[in-house]
Amino acid sequence: VRTTTSPQLLALLPVERGSGSPLHQQIYEGLRRAILERRLRAGQRVPATRVLACELGVSRLPVLTAYEQLLHEGYLEGRVGSGTFVATTLPDDALRAPAASARSRRAPAPSVTALAPRVRDAGRLRPFRVSLPALDQFPHAMWARLVAKHARALTPAHMSYGDPAGVGVLRAAIAEHLRASRAVRCEAEQLLIVSGSQAALRLCATVLLAPGDRVAIEEPGYPGARSALGTTGATLVPVPVDVGGIDVTALEKLSAGAARMRAAYVTPSHQYPLGMSMSAPRRLALLEWARHRNAWIIEDDYDSEYRYVSRPLGALQGMEEHGRVIYVGTFSKVLFPALRVGYLIVPPALWEQFVAAREALDLFSPTLYQLVLADFIREGHFVRHLRRMRGVYLRRRDALLDGLSRHCADELELLNADAGLHVATTLRAGADDEDVVRRAALEKLSPAALSACYLGGERRSGLLLGFGGFNERRITRATRTLGEILRAQR
Amino acid sequence: VRTTTSPQLLALLPVERGSGSPLHQQIYEGLRRAILERRLRAGQRVPATRVLACELGVSRLPVLTAYEQLLHEGYLEGRVGSGTFVATTLPDDALRAPAASARSRRAPAPSVTALAPRVRDAGRLRPFRVSLPALDQFPHAMWARLVAKHARALTPAHMSYGDPAGVGVLRAAIAEHLRASRAVRCEAEQLLIVSGSQAALRLCATVLLAPGDRVAIEEPGYPGARSALGTTGATLVPVPVDVGGIDVTALEKLSAGAARMRAAYVTPSHQYPLGMSMSAPRRLALLEWARHRNAWIIEDDYDSEYRYVSRPLGALQGMEEHGRVIYVGTFSKVLFPALRVGYLIVPPALWEQFVAAREALDLFSPTLYQLVLADFIREGHFVRHLRRMRGVYLRRRDALLDGLSRHCADELELLNADAGLHVATTLRAGADDEDVVRRAALEKLSPAALSACYLGGERRSGLLLGFGGFNERRITRATRTLGEILRAQR
Repeated sequence: VRTTTSPQLLALLPVERGSGSPLHQQIYEGLRRAILERRLRAGQRVPATRVLACELGVSRLPVLTAYEQLLHEGYLEGRVGSGTFVATTLPDDALRAPAASARSRRAPAPSVTALAPRVRDAGRLRPFRVSLPALDQFPHAMWARLVAKHARALTPAHMSYGDPAGVGVLRAAIAEHLRASRAVRCEAEQLLIVSGSQAALRLCATVLLAPGDRVAIEEPGYPGARSALGTTGATLVPVPVDVGGIDVTALEKLSAGAARMRAAYVTPSHQYPLGMSMSAPRRLALLEWARHRNAWIIEDDYDSEYRYVSRPLGALQGMEEHGRVIYVGTFSKVLFPALRVGYLIVPPALWEQFVAAREALDLFSPTLYQLVLADFIREGHFVRHLRRMRGVYLRRRDALLDGLSRHCADELELLNADAGLHVATTLRAGADDEDVVRRAALEKLSPAALSACYLGGERRSGLLLGFGGFNERRITRATRTLGEILRAQR
Repeated sequence: VRTTTSPQLLALLPVERGSGSPLHQQIYEGLRRAILERRLRAGQRVPATRVLACELGVSRLPVLTAYEQLLHEGYLEGRVGSGTFVATTLPDDALRAPAASARSRRAPAPSVTALAPRVRDAGRLRPFRVSLPALDQFPHAMWARLVAKHARALTPAHMSYGDPAGVGVLRAAIAEHLRASRAVRCEAEQLLIVSGSQAALRLCATVLLAPGDRVAIEEPGYPGARSALGTTGATLVPVPVDVGGIDVTALEKLSAGAARMRAAYVTPSHQYPLGMSMSAPRRLALLEWARHRNAWIIEDDYDSEYRYVSRPLGALQGMEEHGRVIYVGTFSKVLFPALRVGYLIVPPALWEQFVAAREALDLFSPTLYQLVLADFIREGHFVRHLRRMRGVYLRRRDALLDGLSRHCADELELLNADAGLHVATTLRAGADDEDVVRRAALEKLSPAALSACYLGGERRSGLLLGFGGFNERRITRATRTLGEILRAQR
């Protein structure tokens, strides 16, 4: 380990007072750029904040703030007692699912580095980031009014321990909404409130999967599901998807043999990451597989609310009567992620086990937001918001498609743009998507690498481009920059 | 299974319009009493809501409401397609840790029925309930003001995905408070925000305990810890406690041999349920054990804020420099349970693993309450509230001790009342605490059975009497009723 000497660092940090940018921001940017450009190398020690502050002639606070930000984002690593170092794995590299984790699929606490850019990059709202809704279009004033109202009216009963299944009025409101809009078969009694789809999938693992069990996942698929479903020591079995969704013939073949396939995780409304919806025959074949194999289907009804080419499809859960589907939904993308409210619809036979597991996880969800959300749905704000957002997202998607055809047509091929808040694209042969993601980060863009969504060895190289969180002007500008990055890389 | 015929039920349900009590309340009370008095038997089917409503001559809504409440509380069980039944295990029985669960200690998802009365009994605020703070004394107006302020000011950055470790300002505020008030050694960088102590213990299990590992727990001890620490398939090893806390000599003996003891879970400030604090020599011996055995200590600093006889003791965590202690705290009892904010202080060597596990669990905690809580601490409201509550709880405790000595002196022996929000008592020889708990429930009192806190076969019979959530008048009245129940049982 070599320590960065101060003169080296000082050259990298042309800190300038009164430049319009705050000092901590300048220090942060300078260090981050130096790390990304490999001028500071992985594992290198950086000077103590006190020393750097003194040499830069600034107070310690901006240096501390910059270090803290870089530590939080994973550019620096702190080792207590021995100082601060340039991280050995950078967050911008982190979308790559490390080969090691693919091999050791049965590790009890699998690495979630695949999720890192999405969640550790806290507060960053950069173009192309996937799973980000239009936070600027959210009805803030109405929401704040409801929050204030419920905060003022908080009774001891609502401040005390709550029902692990969730607040009754919210469960009833969600059940009614889902019956009407998603053709889901459910009563409020089957509805379990949790803190998002990650927690929901985690619960599925706890209840359904024992060590050594096998669970089918889509290939390519949602990296967050891998980390959640792998926690109890189950083996993840990747099953290829095609234009109709998960390949049930392949699934059937993989299910034969000694070890039982306990469950299959699918995203029928809007396959993550590729975007197509599961065809009706495929849905029926999958349900037949579950019945025949006595297996469970975990339906993640991700991004089902937004379809741009035809009516949204009903949920798989509503197509069968045998109670073999566990339905997972979340408000993270239809309202906002920091709300932390998601839900499961649980077949009656599994209810007690799910509630007990939910209770052992963290007892129950915070009450205030459940009450607020119940009002928001019951008073019609939620449906109005969804309806309005369909128009907003359609315009943003169109801006993206237009920008891509103008600026990136020779570099990217579009896979599907019918639904959801992102489009999936492939890069021309030989292009390395991880490398594009790194270069894009330097230009303050946050596409995600398609290759990170594969668990197996054969990976397509491509980009996932989120359009939900950015207005048309930003999207257009971002596609121009992306085109430049892609051409410069040739 | 025998179905309850309607005439039978009608006799049990003297529903009366205009009696001052709402219809659904009358139906609920009647059914609940009939179940508790065993006039409706476990497993018996109750009529469909439509049928009962018709026979009672009321609309279906009050019947539905009553059934829903009874289902939520566990008095009834629904089996979809086949109707509603009197539960086979009643919530009032549920404090008993079933012998089966004590034997099958390695079950991957242990039953949490031991927690059921605390959490499923949602919204009920009955005298003697443990772990319930003085919700009536909470500075509601100030809190509501802060909530409204942050709800209005919610930026896109605060609505988006947050840092899995928690919001920076809150982590800094908690770290500062703990350094000052609990003599804890920590930086904000070691502080991980989670949704309460249950989630914190669950994370400890995920990171520290693999299937087959052994973890020491106190005997008697906190039932919630059993359900959380048992989730990853570790074996729970009960270690007796005496007046000085966990018996380290016994722990040392149990640690010898083939299978390694990976960790010990302890409540040094206020042993749950017995109430004493761990002596200084015992603390040093425990730390020495951890170093020597290369084991971890999970310190649950439960109820440390309230001591009535001497100054609060510093945390175990602050007594050592080897980073072998994971410190767990929560705001459930110092503010209110429905807040769902707790935290861990994690040794640097384990930090990355804990953050990754926390992220895989449910990404991050809701942002709004973290911002509100940070302000509440930084503006001094928290420390003022704690200071004021010490006086409130002292008066409530004194009312309880006074009432017990007047009304229950011949029936109960007090074990410890130096700290916390409940006192532990033992019953005279031969008295069955589960039975007392059932009878007390009929009188709207919610003591907990001491015997349920034991994992092994030898159990003391006694009552845990919470005093935090009830004013002096209610406490005095409740002790009188308790005395009558105990004498009637002789």
